[in-house]
Amino acid sequence: MRITDMHITPIAIVDPPLLNAAGLHAPYALRIVVELVSEDNIYGLSEVPGHYDTLAALEAARAVVIGSDPFNFNGLQLRLTERFGTVDEARGSAPWDQRKLVHVLSALDVACLDLTGKAIGRPVVDLLGGKVRDRVDFSAYLFYKYEGAGGELGFDTDPSATGWAAARQKAALDPQGVVAQAQAMCNEFGFKSIKLKGGAMEPQIEVDSMLALAEAFGPGTPLRLDPNAIWKLETAIECGKQLEGVLEYYEDPVRGQEAMGQLRKAVNIPLATNMCTTSFEDLPGSVRHHSEDIILSDHHFWGGLRASMDLARFCRVFGRGMSMHSNSHVGISLAAMVHLAAAVPNLTYACDTHYPWQSDEVITQGRFHFEDGAIEVSNEPGLGIELDRAALAKLHEQYKTCGLTYRNDEIEMQKVEPGWKFMSTRW
Amino acid sequence: MRITDMHITPIAIVDPPLLNAAGLHAPYALRIVVELVSEDNIYGLSEVPGHYDTLAALEAARAVVIGSDPFNFNGLQLRLTERFGTVDEARGSAPWDQRKLVHVLSALDVACLDLTGKAIGRPVVDLLGGKVRDRVDFSAYLFYKYEGAGGELGFDTDPSATGWAAARQKAALDPQGVVAQAQAMCNEFGFKSIKLKGGAMEPQIEVDSMLALAEAFGPGTPLRLDPNAIWKLETAIECGKQLEGVLEYYEDPVRGQEAMGQLRKAVNIPLATNMCTTSFEDLPGSVRHHSEDIILSDHHFWGGLRASMDLARFCRVFGRGMSMHSNSHVGISLAAMVHLAAAVPNLTYACDTHYPWQSDEVITQGRFHFEDGAIEVSNEPGLGIELDRAALAKLHEQYKTCGLTYRNDEIEMQKVEPGWKFMSTRW
Repeated sequence: MRITDMHITPIAIVDPPLLNAAGLHAPYALRIVVELVSEDNIYGLSEVPGHYDTLAALEAARAVVIGSDPFNFNGLQLRLTERFGTVDEARGSAPWDQRKLVHVLSALDVACLDLTGKAIGRPVVDLLGGKVRDRVDFSAYLFYKYEGAGGELGFDTDPSATGWAAARQKAALDPQGVVAQAQAMCNEFGFKSIKLKGGAMEPQIEVDSMLALAEAFGPGTPLRLDPNAIWKLETAIECGKQLEGVLEYYEDPVRGQEAMGQLRKAVNIPLATNMCTTSFEDLPGSVRHHSEDIILSDHHFWGGLRASMDLARFCRVFGRGMSMHSNSHVGISLAAMVHLAAAVPNLTYACDTHYPWQSDEVITQGRFHFEDGAIEVSNEPGLGIELDRAALAKLHEQYKTCGLTYRNDEIEMQKVEPGWKFMSTRW
Repeated sequence: MRITDMHITPIAIVDPPLLNAAGLHAPYALRIVVELVSEDNIYGLSEVPGHYDTLAALEAARAVVIGSDPFNFNGLQLRLTERFGTVDEARGSAPWDQRKLVHVLSALDVACLDLTGKAIGRPVVDLLGGKVRDRVDFSAYLFYKYEGAGGELGFDTDPSATGWAAARQKAALDPQGVVAQAQAMCNEFGFKSIKLKGGAMEPQIEVDSMLALAEAFGPGTPLRLDPNAIWKLETAIECGKQLEGVLEYYEDPVRGQEAMGQLRKAVNIPLATNMCTTSFEDLPGSVRHHSEDIILSDHHFWGGLRASMDLARFCRVFGRGMSMHSNSHVGISLAAMVHLAAAVPNLTYACDTHYPWQSDEVITQGRFHFEDGAIEVSNEPGLGIELDRAALAKLHEQYKTCGLTYRNDEIEMQKVEPGWKFMSTRW
């Protein structure tokens, strides 16, 4: 079987004004939809974060991809790595750096799995060795945010919205706002675990937000705080001491494996990361520093679903728990995340997802449905989804008109607070 | 798809009187052939080392296997591990210890891959992500040995034998004998790399054998010596110094990760192991001690082909080379080894195989053919082999009449040298 065509479509999806350590989400988040088509006209889909560099990298990969056997991802990966640089190169030292390569590999791994799964009539999870669970739990993903719906409305709201669609337009800039957001989100989706994206407010406000969530949701509710590595070690220790017994895990309070390893000895809360250990090259350092207890996998950043299975083995062998990271995304990524989570025995934490913050979709079945915070694993061939080509065209048009070509939360923040600067360590 | 039947057949295959650190090979080597049959009457094969414990473990696993989906090995592995103990248990602390569990998992992983590969019409290598090479190189595997053909002939020889079949009956108990064996084997199979099983003779004889091989085959020939961890550190250093620049790698000269790590600093030859790092639980210690440069994979001991792919990732990430270990085996194991080696980008060393020492076979195509020391990777569905049921019945009969139920090279050696005792460190 040969791949005869490769369609690469950048899209923009409406995203509300969410705050984080890097600044503010733009009114649109960018994604790239990749479609591989085989000679017998079966197609495979994937979705990766949108960036003009990734777009160019995917375009450059096309010549290597066309004519390849979708069942032979190992061979394809070898040819792409040989042509565009190995993972040993320093990031940014080559026109095609490692971060682009993993996105390209992820896009092709997932699309090949979807395509071949459809060709043999089996779900993608079977090509990862089969499922160990029928439902995949996700967590509520809370953000400090400004009022606004994002997209054309920007900081305005749609007064006709109801339910969660209305609630997600509201500002959340203090503990009470965060609790209200959590209640609305958990009401709608049934999430049992709750994560707050921190690093946006004064540390004590974020600690107080977690304490307010613990108060509102009761003891035992799995709570997580992610300050995105913007805290000093002393701050992280001081805040951590207040959150011992409250947090399920403490995600990236400080920057780098060494500081994480130091914090881990000082605070009695499991540490999680998707910032200090984010690639296979980081694993020796993870072992050396014992920088975390839990690694948040992300198939977009680790080079695909099969590579993520390898990460899962590392986690089992080296005593790391495994959870899952997310960015703003639509249903193709979500489907891939579900198949991966279903195959990994040690992915025992509810996964992150930004999905409730999005309203756009590119698949014919429409928006995925959560029941009790979980998504059922599809038994349909491939990823179990079909591309809505009209929706794709609309979101591509949205991409062309929105004017964004990459994500820059600092620039967005400066539109609200002129002169605002990202700081790698702020508090 | 469901598995409706599981056939477990112990077999005995003729094995010549080969010497090693543990003693002497018996006239027959034991293997177990496992056949899984699906509801639509497709069958999948595998082969694992024969031991009455493994046989009992496989029989006990049958109730878990029947009714399982062969596409869902993850789920099957989880149920088997839950039922029979986890890998965290100390070896031998449970009736079904980890060493048996990995053999059972290996048997089921390979048979499920063969079965599902046949079901979807794709070779097993495609279910491991696809091939990165079309031919898999093997190495000549030399042994010190007594004269004899093994099997019924025992220490006698068949005078009608010709070519390699005649040469392999000859004794090899000194450097000249080893060189003659190597020349006959390389003539027949075209191997380009040469390994000598050591640990059987005085260390200086083994060093001299390697120097004689280097002399006979010329500089640059990849040579390996494997004393099976029976040497003291001082001996290994002393011998190693004589072999710097001669050996491609030095396999398990000493016992344990700590001693291997010490040796590694003292001798300028890459160290390889299939003794100190033989399971996923050993990997943290491997990193701590940096006990080797090269890990010899063995899908029988690591829990299957998919688990071996995980090991390959570990090797890439932690800077270990990868080669492949072998025991006496027939064509089912060899086919599985070829599919694995074809899928692993970093399996760059010629693989070990005992295959030239065997004459029996259980597959309809007959004995595998080596060309220039390599085997071509099959593109046929599954492992690309079919079971010769008449040959299987004959080898099962041979099992019942030979009287062996497990491998014990010490007892065999005592038949030649009464009172001989295995010593974990001899020289």
